[in-house]
Amino acid sequence: MAIDLVTGNAVIGQSGGPTAVINESLVGVIEGLRRAGAGNPGNPIKKVLGMRHGVTGLVNGDLYDLTDYPHDRLQVLAQTPSAGLGSTRDKPDAAYCERILEACKEHDIRYFFYIGGNDSSDTCRIVNEMANETGYELRCFHIPKTVDNDLVINDHTPGFPSAARFVAKACMADFLDNISLPGIKINVIMGRHAGFLTAASALARRDDRYAHEGGSTDGPQLIYLPEVPFDTDVFVDDVAKLYEKRQRVHIAVSEGIADKHGNSIGAMLIKNAQTDAHGNVQLSGSGALGDALSDLLKEKLTPVGGTAVRVRADTFGYVQRCFPDQSPVDQKEARGVGRFAAKLATSGDVDGSVAIIRTSPIGVSQPYAARFERIELSDVAAKTKHMPAEFIDGHNNVSQKFLDYCRPLVGDLPLYERI
Amino acid sequence: MAIDLVTGNAVIGQSGGPTAVINESLVGVIEGLRRAGAGNPGNPIKKVLGMRHGVTGLVNGDLYDLTDYPHDRLQVLAQTPSAGLGSTRDKPDAAYCERILEACKEHDIRYFFYIGGNDSSDTCRIVNEMANETGYELRCFHIPKTVDNDLVINDHTPGFPSAARFVAKACMADFLDNISLPGIKINVIMGRHAGFLTAASALARRDDRYAHEGGSTDGPQLIYLPEVPFDTDVFVDDVAKLYEKRQRVHIAVSEGIADKHGNSIGAMLIKNAQTDAHGNVQLSGSGALGDALSDLLKEKLTPVGGTAVRVRADTFGYVQRCFPDQSPVDQKEARGVGRFAAKLATSGDVDGSVAIIRTSPIGVSQPYAARFERIELSDVAAKTKHMPAEFIDGHNNVSQKFLDYCRPLVGDLPLYERI
Repeated sequence: MAIDLVTGNAVIGQSGGPTAVINESLVGVIEGLRRAGAGNPGNPIKKVLGMRHGVTGLVNGDLYDLTDYPHDRLQVLAQTPSAGLGSTRDKPDAAYCERILEACKEHDIRYFFYIGGNDSSDTCRIVNEMANETGYELRCFHIPKTVDNDLVINDHTPGFPSAARFVAKACMADFLDNISLPGIKINVIMGRHAGFLTAASALARRDDRYAHEGGSTDGPQLIYLPEVPFDTDVFVDDVAKLYEKRQRVHIAVSEGIADKHGNSIGAMLIKNAQTDAHGNVQLSGSGALGDALSDLLKEKLTPVGGTAVRVRADTFGYVQRCFPDQSPVDQKEARGVGRFAAKLATSGDVDGSVAIIRTSPIGVSQPYAARFERIELSDVAAKTKHMPAEFIDGHNNVSQKFLDYCRPLVGDLPLYERI
Repeated sequence: MAIDLVTGNAVIGQSGGPTAVINESLVGVIEGLRRAGAGNPGNPIKKVLGMRHGVTGLVNGDLYDLTDYPHDRLQVLAQTPSAGLGSTRDKPDAAYCERILEACKEHDIRYFFYIGGNDSSDTCRIVNEMANETGYELRCFHIPKTVDNDLVINDHTPGFPSAARFVAKACMADFLDNISLPGIKINVIMGRHAGFLTAASALARRDDRYAHEGGSTDGPQLIYLPEVPFDTDVFVDDVAKLYEKRQRVHIAVSEGIADKHGNSIGAMLIKNAQTDAHGNVQLSGSGALGDALSDLLKEKLTPVGGTAVRVRADTFGYVQRCFPDQSPVDQKEARGVGRFAAKLATSGDVDGSVAIIRTSPIGVSQPYAARFERIELSDVAAKTKHMPAEFIDGHNNVSQKFLDYCRPLVGDLPLYERI
């Protein structure tokens, strides 16, 4: 519903785990607002402000004035990984959201842009509803972002393609390392509830022609997702079978793997674990899950009195979400969703979230295409998307359909040669 | 000493930890031998063979025939990370070297090329001496390779610049991540005895103008090298001081840090550690050192009854040595040392190692230049270079001279913008 523009300032914030392209979205909003004349005399949008560390900065009055931020520096900022404004893990409750609304009134903010995942869209929704209830005209827009790729309605979310690109390239290199010095190698990959990023490890396989015939010979040969209950006995058995055949196994494991009761394997294993504001055990920034799985395999697979089986585990850690080797599709779309949100706001829309909708069919060799669409905040807020069943193949692999879905998003991957 | 060529086959092997450019050297040797006519009728060099998994393959007769390997596939192989022939951790003793010599005789091998670090150069030296003693004409050449950058005489070694590039880019991204969601972040970086790779983390700092005034404000702010005795109390104190100032600290730690008695901190902390053929505890493929340092900081810095200090540790692991984003200088030089070794052999040299000698001054803004030089096998064999004192600044930083030394090797790094 398009109505007249309200006069006041705009504010932009970034929230949650940073990504390699979240600043593209920030710059996209700024560019979109500038194109509509924000900051020019007579324009209803007076200033373009940035929240320092998301809503934390907003409620503390810690704001940047970005209205006249130099154009050339904006272009470098867009390509800079991580949240340029600073991010926050705060998950506002009703009382916090009231403080956000008060801060908006205090700073004459009438346009509220929040770049983040499902928690951020929920913050947007609550603030929006409160503003409506109190009769304060505030236009609230959520801009999608998360390497976990777990926002509903969206085909995928900005940040995921670049993180997936890193995971694919790192797994490719590590698989080649694994075959050069055989043994068992485990890589632990981000994704608390959604397995998309771990699944992207399958793009490391040079050749997936054989996927239909029971798997490529390239690694990772085993992929464990949070969507499939993890059983340690089955895991050991899977590894043992492959190891017997080739004396090497390359394994991708999601940090979020859980047993059939939904208990996180990592949370059970990590000593001195810290929890975040959402009550979640911090799974990243620790090598404990990988080390525990590694110890398990050493114990179970080493023959009595025999030479210890060589097992190594790496945890990709924070570098996977911000590595400066962005997917071109991701850069373009992250910029695009920011611009689109600004356009919604400057066209008189009063609220909403931006979704990426794929318009090209999956699995057909024609150029990838997508469009942006306004969706209701309540449609995306606080909901989590998981890997659909059609993307999963058995208990330890991904499907060809997932590969077809993911491949066009990550950009060109290096070719490699095996003698 | 140039003498006539001997008639027989050539063999090439790769040894030790793989790198992102070790196949450039392999292809360089093959190209060099082909240019000299190897494999052509009448040429003294008959076949070009590859050892499968280094000397392990050679003694088992597990050899590839690379004489007619297609040119276009060689070009892709050159850019493929990790050891295309397979590598080995075997460190041959005298008896093993005798088996190597026997295998050479059996397969009519007269030219022996071994791409590897200081252990590999030592294997080359022993085999060469044995061949000389027994009067078997075998021309032995060592080609440098190691991400640790610890070969003597060489300005630097192929593999190091690409690994340093990864470390710099990963630390840059991770520093930006750290300032967006403050706290303490530790990154554990490869390098058992030499700190060059950990030191390269300093290239992540956007701006080192302030290095002379007590350090850039960009991370990593603290860098711990194996060359400087590590004291946990001093470490905690270093971190506490910076944390008090900014509520965030970005730290790079070498996996090889050791106390003043030379005891490896990692080896003391890693449970269920495995040792390699050289008797070294495997420091990579485990998050134990980072997790232990992280636990230490949480314990020491969290105020009694206060909120836990946010500490995270990542261990970069194997991906740093093979990530497919090679330094252009490294690619060119790795190819070059391979070609140079082939040229030595086909010009009638009987043995030697290839060294990279920098010919441009360090720290002067003119194009980087280097040349290759033949050195004696005994000059490089089994010796380890460490970070020289002039590259180290105090107990937790690197010097401007190190930055000037390292910067031209790694290629262009992305610019970034801080608001």
